[in-house]
Amino acid sequence: MTSRKIVCLTEGHSEPHAGKTAANVIRYRREEVVAMLDSTQVGKNSRDLFAVTTGEPVPVIANLDEAPSANTLLLGIAPPGGKIPASWRKIILQAIGRKMDVVSGLHDFLNNDAEFKQAATAAGVKLVDVRSNSEKSIARRKGLRPDCLRVHTVGHDCSIGKMVVSVEVTNGLKKKGWDAKFIATGQTGIMIEGDGLPIDCIVADFVSGAAEKMVLEHQHHQILLVEGQGSLVHPSYSGVTLSLLHGCAPQALILCYEIGRDTVTGVESVKIPPLAEIKKMFELMANIHQSCQVIGIAINSRRVDAAAAAAERARVKAEFGLPACDVLRDGPDELVDAVIAFHEQGGWHSP
Amino acid sequence: MTSRKIVCLTEGHSEPHAGKTAANVIRYRREEVVAMLDSTQVGKNSRDLFAVTTGEPVPVIANLDEAPSANTLLLGIAPPGGKIPASWRKIILQAIGRKMDVVSGLHDFLNNDAEFKQAATAAGVKLVDVRSNSEKSIARRKGLRPDCLRVHTVGHDCSIGKMVVSVEVTNGLKKKGWDAKFIATGQTGIMIEGDGLPIDCIVADFVSGAAEKMVLEHQHHQILLVEGQGSLVHPSYSGVTLSLLHGCAPQALILCYEIGRDTVTGVESVKIPPLAEIKKMFELMANIHQSCQVIGIAINSRRVDAAAAAAERARVKAEFGLPACDVLRDGPDELVDAVIAFHEQGGWHSP
Repeated sequence: MTSRKIVCLTEGHSEPHAGKTAANVIRYRREEVVAMLDSTQVGKNSRDLFAVTTGEPVPVIANLDEAPSANTLLLGIAPPGGKIPASWRKIILQAIGRKMDVVSGLHDFLNNDAEFKQAATAAGVKLVDVRSNSEKSIARRKGLRPDCLRVHTVGHDCSIGKMVVSVEVTNGLKKKGWDAKFIATGQTGIMIEGDGLPIDCIVADFVSGAAEKMVLEHQHHQILLVEGQGSLVHPSYSGVTLSLLHGCAPQALILCYEIGRDTVTGVESVKIPPLAEIKKMFELMANIHQSCQVIGIAINSRRVDAAAAAAERARVKAEFGLPACDVLRDGPDELVDAVIAFHEQGGWHSP
Repeated sequence: MTSRKIVCLTEGHSEPHAGKTAANVIRYRREEVVAMLDSTQVGKNSRDLFAVTTGEPVPVIANLDEAPSANTLLLGIAPPGGKIPASWRKIILQAIGRKMDVVSGLHDFLNNDAEFKQAATAAGVKLVDVRSNSEKSIARRKGLRPDCLRVHTVGHDCSIGKMVVSVEVTNGLKKKGWDAKFIATGQTGIMIEGDGLPIDCIVADFVSGAAEKMVLEHQHHQILLVEGQGSLVHPSYSGVTLSLLHGCAPQALILCYEIGRDTVTGVESVKIPPLAEIKKMFELMANIHQSCQVIGIAINSRRVDAAAAAAERARVKAEFGLPACDVLRDGPDELVDAVIAFHEQGGWHSP
């Protein structure tokens, strides 16, 4: 099988929030990415645009002709509602014409689009819709291994870095010799990990069943880091969050938040409650079926400087009496150690 | 348009829990039902099998030949997972052969079944999948009318009568001259009301958006009674429950429970917490975005006798200091009056 040579398409959307799919594929699959495509940002690179500092920066190109070796176009954005921007159609068709596969995590499936489908068939390329699924399992709470520690990242809003925290803590645990596995539940996580299920695109009745299925499949590992989605206080996505929480049945939570995020993304009329209330809500809902507690706090401090980030970190550690860090700014060690300490202290083994 | 003459298919499943779709179509659409089909229960009728006491009992037949005037076969069960029982295939094909339309509320769509589809096309009949939808709205919390009172039925488990309570209270309000509307969110409710959306069969990200959409569409009525689904404590369906709660943004809740229901339906290892805890959980989650309170309690007392039901009703009224009744045993008046009192007292008008 030919290895992937990816162009990340972010045309008009090359900033860290809108382009989080591209940013994280570049962060964790750097070796597969040859360029970013955004004709409005030519001359810049992934470091300038996304502040991704791992590996060599990825150059921005204006046209697919500039990346003749590329064999895959990856749609690099995650807009609410998951629609394909109208202006992207001709770029996608161009890529198909160049015999490139197209990978998408959007709710609008490429394979449901007659024009794309026809072009892809003619060119003999694949249209990969990462969110497409036909999951129909119901959560049964049977067969969960008591010796597998399930850690779940939850947060005060969507798009605050729960996936990044899950990946960084998983990698940190592996470096220290633990058998840990990242359980991807969103399109970007799936593109990075190569497996997982797109929780938010499953028929509602079967979301917790899908989360449970992933846990059952991978619980031979010592520790699972299950990527969270949305937030219990987000009026549009709270149900996805709760299905996932109850489906993966965690014994431990890492609570994620972003400094300066005061209102819910996409529903700016809704204020986000204080973090202490969010923590109580998650612990209440997580404890209905088994014992579960928040064991650490992940801070996303991308919008503030180092001094402000350090001050907030000290403040939040004092307020909650818990380990806390920004996994990108500070490294994940404090949270990795919190997971190990919780594992070793025991008492979490009940199903 | 020819009026429907329905045979309710419940073959092998003619009891109130499994056959709740049939029981409620008979309860609220009696004029359209000509027979129940269950060869294992011949000689009995809907009153014997479902304890539905409104209207004349519906006879049970063993074979479609016994209902020559029927033009619609309605699949009358709602099993977890929503699969069509294998033994029903030949009855469905027989109905299609007799030029009957087939109406189904199951997750397994008739229209996705090649054999059914081909037979229906040949016979020129309709296969109606009530749960089929392509909803893709995201909840935005915009445009909610402050003068429309949204009452939502919630409960301690699934299948405890939230739909029946919603319909009975709506009808009770109408009788007293109020402009009330039942908002159906499940397959049976949709079959009864003729509109609504199958909340549990919508892609997870869009469930709250679908609930919001129904509210926006019908908020010219004075009062909406939004049918609840599942329960916040049901590990398989809690996310559906929360999406619906946050999507329909109620100012008032009616808390439903069944006497003697101790464990979660389908996941019997999970104990249902005490009703007072359930009430706290719903009020906590409902109050994140606006003020909302439980204004009455609906008791399902079908498993106990009149004396035990009366004793429980007195007990629960004393415990919670709220109106409480079994809408089928006692009539819905106490809950209807609670809704009217809440409406008239005011203070709920904030969005």
